[in-house]
Amino acid sequence: MSVTAPKGFLAGTAATGLRKSGQDDVCVIFSEDPCSAAGVFTRNQMAAAPIKQAKEALAGGALRAVVANSGNANACTGARGLTDARAMAAAAAEALGIGRDEVAVASTGVIGVPLDIDALLPGIASAAASLRPDAGEEAARAIMTTDTFPKTSTERFEVDGASYTVGAIAKGAGMIRPDMATMLAFVTTDAPLTAQQCKRILRRATDASFNRITVDGQTSTNDCVILMANGRAGGRLGDERIEEGASEAVEAVCRDLSLQIVRDGEGATKLIEVTVEGAADDDDARAAAMAVADSLLFKCAMFGEDANWGRVVSAVGASSVRVDPDSISVSFAGIPVARDGAAVAFSEEEAAAALAQDEVKVVVDLGIGDGSSTVWTCDISFEYVRVNSAYRT
Amino acid sequence: MSVTAPKGFLAGTAATGLRKSGQDDVCVIFSEDPCSAAGVFTRNQMAAAPIKQAKEALAGGALRAVVANSGNANACTGARGLTDARAMAAAAAEALGIGRDEVAVASTGVIGVPLDIDALLPGIASAAASLRPDAGEEAARAIMTTDTFPKTSTERFEVDGASYTVGAIAKGAGMIRPDMATMLAFVTTDAPLTAQQCKRILRRATDASFNRITVDGQTSTNDCVILMANGRAGGRLGDERIEEGASEAVEAVCRDLSLQIVRDGEGATKLIEVTVEGAADDDDARAAAMAVADSLLFKCAMFGEDANWGRVVSAVGASSVRVDPDSISVSFAGIPVARDGAAVAFSEEEAAAALAQDEVKVVVDLGIGDGSSTVWTCDISFEYVRVNSAYRT
Repeated sequence: MSVTAPKGFLAGTAATGLRKSGQDDVCVIFSEDPCSAAGVFTRNQMAAAPIKQAKEALAGGALRAVVANSGNANACTGARGLTDARAMAAAAAEALGIGRDEVAVASTGVIGVPLDIDALLPGIASAAASLRPDAGEEAARAIMTTDTFPKTSTERFEVDGASYTVGAIAKGAGMIRPDMATMLAFVTTDAPLTAQQCKRILRRATDASFNRITVDGQTSTNDCVILMANGRAGGRLGDERIEEGASEAVEAVCRDLSLQIVRDGEGATKLIEVTVEGAADDDDARAAAMAVADSLLFKCAMFGEDANWGRVVSAVGASSVRVDPDSISVSFAGIPVARDGAAVAFSEEEAAAALAQDEVKVVVDLGIGDGSSTVWTCDISFEYVRVNSAYRT
Repeated sequence: MSVTAPKGFLAGTAATGLRKSGQDDVCVIFSEDPCSAAGVFTRNQMAAAPIKQAKEALAGGALRAVVANSGNANACTGARGLTDARAMAAAAAEALGIGRDEVAVASTGVIGVPLDIDALLPGIASAAASLRPDAGEEAARAIMTTDTFPKTSTERFEVDGASYTVGAIAKGAGMIRPDMATMLAFVTTDAPLTAQQCKRILRRATDASFNRITVDGQTSTNDCVILMANGRAGGRLGDERIEEGASEAVEAVCRDLSLQIVRDGEGATKLIEVTVEGAADDDDARAAAMAVADSLLFKCAMFGEDANWGRVVSAVGASSVRVDPDSISVSFAGIPVARDGAAVAFSEEEAAAALAQDEVKVVVDLGIGDGSSTVWTCDISFEYVRVNSAYRT
């Protein structure tokens, strides 16, 4: 499963000591054939060195390999950071016998600490030497930081009797409020796609998935999603039906991974889906849904299984989204709790029971138009504070 | 002290059962003389009913009394909410023998629950009947919700040998990210000021105080600051020197109350001052400082006494403030931790000790211009989550 599910993709991992636990912290994802490729990256202005390297590598729309490490984000590391990121690509290229501009680098972990490059480079060589067609889950594990489980996803689709596979891995649990991308995610497919198609597919998929989740409203310096397509499963390059199939499959795996990330949000006890309907337009709906999903008070109430809908409407009202205070309605897990801007009678016991589920749907109807949008988030618990008050120590 | 310190101001309180603890939850602040007055109010689009009532009452720039309750925000309560707010003003007016348009109403507490107006109206009459010139602290206590201490402040200034006093109270501990105002604050003075002067003074003071603090990034539906000036201490109405003195004094009490609110932030263990220097302009500096002060990860790190400056630069980078990643520098409590976008060597032990203080100064130098600004916030601890996961229950 995962990134090695599509034909012609291999993965290898190694432990270099970047993660104090001694677990694997480097992975190499390799395609036996040349790939069309595209990436989307964080809009954080402090974009990390590996983001710069990966953008350069992807400028030509082709790629053979990705090398990623956890334990250190190589962000805010100055000129040395970029030198180190390029050295990572060069080490992978040498071990794999490909060009260094065919390797994209990704890093995740603590910000502001230079990489221990002397430990990392031999690790990359070792990961490249251990490539296997069934190491997809190990790869997913090697990019984890505060994640509690590896995140993988696979989809298949058919065109003209040919079967195509899309595989993907991701990591992320905190500093999650992607803006055009999320913490590391790598998507592979054996479908024949041009670089232009990869770009189109990836942008659409991330916009419908990673860009609609938030754990803590914090856009990372290292967000990066990369799609590689090697065409190994046959078919004509540029075929629109293949693009359509691939687009749906890529969106499905990105959506799947996004929800896994939110479900694994640091300290999260539940997945929360926030849908805003009746907005002036879809952009307003999305902004309103994100305002709710990012509200610390709303997230604490969800942790406490408290149907405190006042925090929902207050969060919407504090945004610049067009609203009519007297036409907003809210439901929690199918239970109407506010209508036309005021409370409706509901059973607190029933509401608390519904909010105690693993998944909670919150629907806000602004009652003024046809715009709608859905985003996903999680609750904020004591554990989030614990994890993040002692992250470096 | 507090709102009854200036000449001619009285306060009275009562318990109506809105606060489950049985503590006083209604206060009346009354001026024996007519006052010039001004208010600033939340920009939350879901502005509560009392906000609408207070804006109407202040439209003429004159006021005799404020009636405020805690335990219920009377927000998102529809048409009934406004009827109830007006009934509160009418009850106070009747008990005080003044016009109902001379009374401004303010409420704070849970959102979305109709007021128990039958309990509240007799309480207002009882508070009005108990007016005393030394009940300033009781008034501050009566408007508390999750606050752990009453917030009062007093300043004096002199013009031509005449001594003027400014007194004030405020409440607020959570849902604090004021936008043009904060949770309830009432400022009184015996200086002679016109309504226009009151407006000018109050806007300037709130912009330099309440609008520069954040506990949890949540702009409330009920934020409201009201200034009343009765001229009882003599002097010429419209005197610019008095305006100047009053302006400084009002800013000082607002600043004092703002810091008290942050210090009392729900679950807070420390007061954090974030200063951004070297920004392209002051607006950028303020936006960058607020981006840091609102960062959940930064606030958790401060709770953990962890000098994790990567979260500071990541928060700045995720904002739209103009930055040069290679020129940003950060210091914690006077200890440089990053220079020109990269780490500098520092003693983790020394930094942890400095961050263990009750007050921590964080300075971010963007290194690209002359803009600077300071804002205040607090850390986020387990206690914030506890308080807010069970607020209504």
